[in-house]
Amino acid sequence: MKILVMGAAGMIGRKLIERLLSVGTLRGEKIAAIHGFDVVEGTFNQDADIDVTVSAGDISDAATVDALVADQPDIIFHLAAIVSGEAEADFEKGYRVNFVGTQNLFDAIIARRDYHPRVVYASSIAVFGAPFPEIIEDDFHLTPLTSYGTQKAIGEMLLADYTRKGHMDGIGLRFPTIVVRPGKPNLAASGFFSNIIREPLAGQSAVLPVGEDVMHWMASPRSAVNFCIHAAEIDGETVGPRRNLTMPGLAITVGEMIEALERLAGAKTAGLIERKSDDVISGIVANWPRNFVATRAESLGFASEKSFDDIIRAHVEDELDGVWPEA
Amino acid sequence: MKILVMGAAGMIGRKLIERLLSVGTLRGEKIAAIHGFDVVEGTFNQDADIDVTVSAGDISDAATVDALVADQPDIIFHLAAIVSGEAEADFEKGYRVNFVGTQNLFDAIIARRDYHPRVVYASSIAVFGAPFPEIIEDDFHLTPLTSYGTQKAIGEMLLADYTRKGHMDGIGLRFPTIVVRPGKPNLAASGFFSNIIREPLAGQSAVLPVGEDVMHWMASPRSAVNFCIHAAEIDGETVGPRRNLTMPGLAITVGEMIEALERLAGAKTAGLIERKSDDVISGIVANWPRNFVATRAESLGFASEKSFDDIIRAHVEDELDGVWPEA
Repeated sequence: MKILVMGAAGMIGRKLIERLLSVGTLRGEKIAAIHGFDVVEGTFNQDADIDVTVSAGDISDAATVDALVADQPDIIFHLAAIVSGEAEADFEKGYRVNFVGTQNLFDAIIARRDYHPRVVYASSIAVFGAPFPEIIEDDFHLTPLTSYGTQKAIGEMLLADYTRKGHMDGIGLRFPTIVVRPGKPNLAASGFFSNIIREPLAGQSAVLPVGEDVMHWMASPRSAVNFCIHAAEIDGETVGPRRNLTMPGLAITVGEMIEALERLAGAKTAGLIERKSDDVISGIVANWPRNFVATRAESLGFASEKSFDDIIRAHVEDELDGVWPEA
Repeated sequence: MKILVMGAAGMIGRKLIERLLSVGTLRGEKIAAIHGFDVVEGTFNQDADIDVTVSAGDISDAATVDALVADQPDIIFHLAAIVSGEAEADFEKGYRVNFVGTQNLFDAIIARRDYHPRVVYASSIAVFGAPFPEIIEDDFHLTPLTSYGTQKAIGEMLLADYTRKGHMDGIGLRFPTIVVRPGKPNLAASGFFSNIIREPLAGQSAVLPVGEDVMHWMASPRSAVNFCIHAAEIDGETVGPRRNLTMPGLAITVGEMIEALERLAGAKTAGLIERKSDDVISGIVANWPRNFVATRAESLGFASEKSFDDIIRAHVEDELDGVWPEA
């Protein structure tokens, strides 16, 4: 079992590789090799039993991508992308990496006869654009309002058609917003959803720029990795021709997030959240989808947290060695 | 007012150019020039007041397409495509023309600063794939089950994003099946919808390969041209960011089509239809969408026939000089 992870230095890519190294098997087979690729080389624990290699490059270069699949990995996780904000700010770069880069991967696979790897493709709820119904169902149309969402939606279309034609075996996953992201606060418009939990748990203050009634669709980093693993292992026949799936998540308001933080970590911790309304961020967030029913994905065995308490607990276990702040 | 028609030798392209020549204006402006482009050169009536040029080439060649927009036409009708059956049979050719060719057009437009033409893009109800609800609404998801439908759906996505970013001013039209197609019977799986009307009206027999309960979504060639003209003239502001529209049509069964033929042209004419069941064609047709509500397009002023009698009358007026068969 050989595995290629594109986007290996990103948050989900790193956690996915760590999980694969710790479990040692995928689809019931022993993992022989993992190749982690990104624009920068990641660093991973070495493992005596698994050949871990890392490399760096640009997926918009067809020869680079062709070389990545030359040894015909059994499973390819394609998580590599220019993120939403940057793809919107740099139109040409977004299309070059997210659109051409994805085409390069699929075309490199097609170019090899008798090679039909499982490709797990990271899509996003950014494929959906406002106005939305109260709850977004699996058959709601894709009308992205960002270039990133457009590029992800096009990848979904290609993945489904190439799979239907028997050229590869793809599964596309529309990730919820991942909360609680580890690391430092960032300037992404969605950053506050993680900041207001992660920073207080570390004894730091965090700014809440929107109202407590704002609802959003979330899953933990641990669930994101679970989605990837399950997508690699699922029987493609049971998925059928609609290969792109909205992943399960939790629709929850900011107010409910704060209540959960206070319940689990105390009033002092929750008190570290500063309310500082920001009209720009509030305006962006108002155009984001807030609530889905992920019926198909759930029926196919994908699962995520059922409460925000579980999302907070996952963060404390996975990032803080299980240590809660003192009350 | 300069107009470029890509796909000028196709059925809709030819009729569109004939209409433009006969009307002489578009968007209330006098038409100065029409350039008709296709893989083969079409022939059109020359007009003293309008500069009509024709040329032939391959839209998968970027330089060819770049030259087409070099004189910055005000309106571009992009009707050029490899049809569904051929795109399915020849995977590489379908992607090369329908996918790369459309990208070439959009990229040639983007490459020119301060050039934002109205682009009228022919999409198709093939962007939808079974299973369907009884009636398909405007917000039903796109899950094409053919490469042609996939390529059209990707064109829709690019058109919407390039328009949203201010790089062009696109409108995508999802055409119903066009009935009654003029010309000779062809082997397209959908050909019988036209054959069973056109051939009997010309005194010839025609084969019906499916049951009379089969329902389909149709509009006349005249309506297809109306859609193109209206899409060229509509105010883009009123369309908003969802630039791709399911065109109005008529959901009607084969049995109702035959009743209309008999009502208008007599029992002898309708008697020329031979029922010869074909499981292959029946199977293909069973996966096609059959009924829509085109709410958005209708609210934006797009209109089509309300009865199949009107579709038959349009054919007799436009193709048979108004001459009905003798009873």
